[in-house]
Amino acid sequence: MVEPIAELIEALSRLPGLGRRSASRAALALVREQLRLLQPLEGALKRAKNEVCCCAQCGAFTVRSENPCKMCTDPARDDSIICVVEEPSDIIALEGSGAFKGRYHVLGGKLSPVRKMGPEKLRIAELVDRIKSGGAKEILIAVSTDMEGDATAGYIQSVLEGAGSGVKVSRLALGLPVDSGIAYSDPLTLRRAISSRTFDF
Amino acid sequence: MVEPIAELIEALSRLPGLGRRSASRAALALVREQLRLLQPLEGALKRAKNEVCCCAQCGAFTVRSENPCKMCTDPARDDSIICVVEEPSDIIALEGSGAFKGRYHVLGGKLSPVRKMGPEKLRIAELVDRIKSGGAKEILIAVSTDMEGDATAGYIQSVLEGAGSGVKVSRLALGLPVDSGIAYSDPLTLRRAISSRTFDF
Repeated sequence: MVEPIAELIEALSRLPGLGRRSASRAALALVREQLRLLQPLEGALKRAKNEVCCCAQCGAFTVRSENPCKMCTDPARDDSIICVVEEPSDIIALEGSGAFKGRYHVLGGKLSPVRKMGPEKLRIAELVDRIKSGGAKEILIAVSTDMEGDATAGYIQSVLEGAGSGVKVSRLALGLPVDSGIAYSDPLTLRRAISSRTFDF
Repeated sequence: MVEPIAELIEALSRLPGLGRRSASRAALALVREQLRLLQPLEGALKRAKNEVCCCAQCGAFTVRSENPCKMCTDPARDDSIICVVEEPSDIIALEGSGAFKGRYHVLGGKLSPVRKMGPEKLRIAELVDRIKSGGAKEILIAVSTDMEGDATAGYIQSVLEGAGSGVKVSRLALGLPVDSGIAYSDPLTLRRAISSRTFDF
């Protein structure tokens, strides 16, 4: 394997979702089809590097020419509810549901003693500032449903209560995913699905 | 989704093995971790574009400063046998087996009426020239074992016979893959494994 291709495989295999094998395949395809694959990717990386930045308000990705981002300035969206997520990718998933029309706030991660993520590394102070500047009546916490996510949600709730903000704090419901079978569900999910069972369906 | 990220997802999703979903994940990771992910990939693509070329002799990838490539000039390799493959990636797989120490010749594809790949698009004339210039006694055809590969192998065999080259033409054995079960094998493979059964194992 020549050195530049080995370097390309190495750079590609660092991406999430690409193993060594698929990185090799992608690298050879890039070299073989430079006009169709390599050059557009090279251009796109350069553009992303030069044009993308984080929205000063919500923390999601935007372009330098639109800061605050479109989501933050869209007059059709509801200022009274802010959905708190870990990463910009979570916004894409939530937007895909079509069920949320409020504003977003990106934390940039979740609390994790193992990965040395303390509250000072998350955009929590920015969230408090946003709430203090008015408009929001509800904070919907949409973080992971694991132990670190639970700790993050609990911490944010206590900070907002401590700040005397007066906003309601909610969290996404736990239960069975749509289109899943009972037999394949884990015990913890089933326990939550039973305790949160609904008569209104 | 801001435009530069959408463009990056589009460029990534063209790569083999990356669906829309993993391309999105990779794109967001690239934007988030520019120092660790985006910049090395950008540099590697630029280097690959500027330094990688095809070996004038075998057609595999090499760097401009080494042409013919290392495989073609390595004095430890056997000049008397040339292994014919479709793509440079096939060489990596064959080298991984450790069972071949001859030279290689890359066709650049296989015959395919559907994809408009005629013999003039494959490096067959170059193969005939190599054989005419002497040294090779055997041509081992290592192309796909599908209909298009069969047609390609047959075509090369007839060209070499027509050219009166006097080289022997061989092809990789067909049979069961190692570590596989009979129950999972397809009928055609089993038929070949039976007809080519060996008493010498």
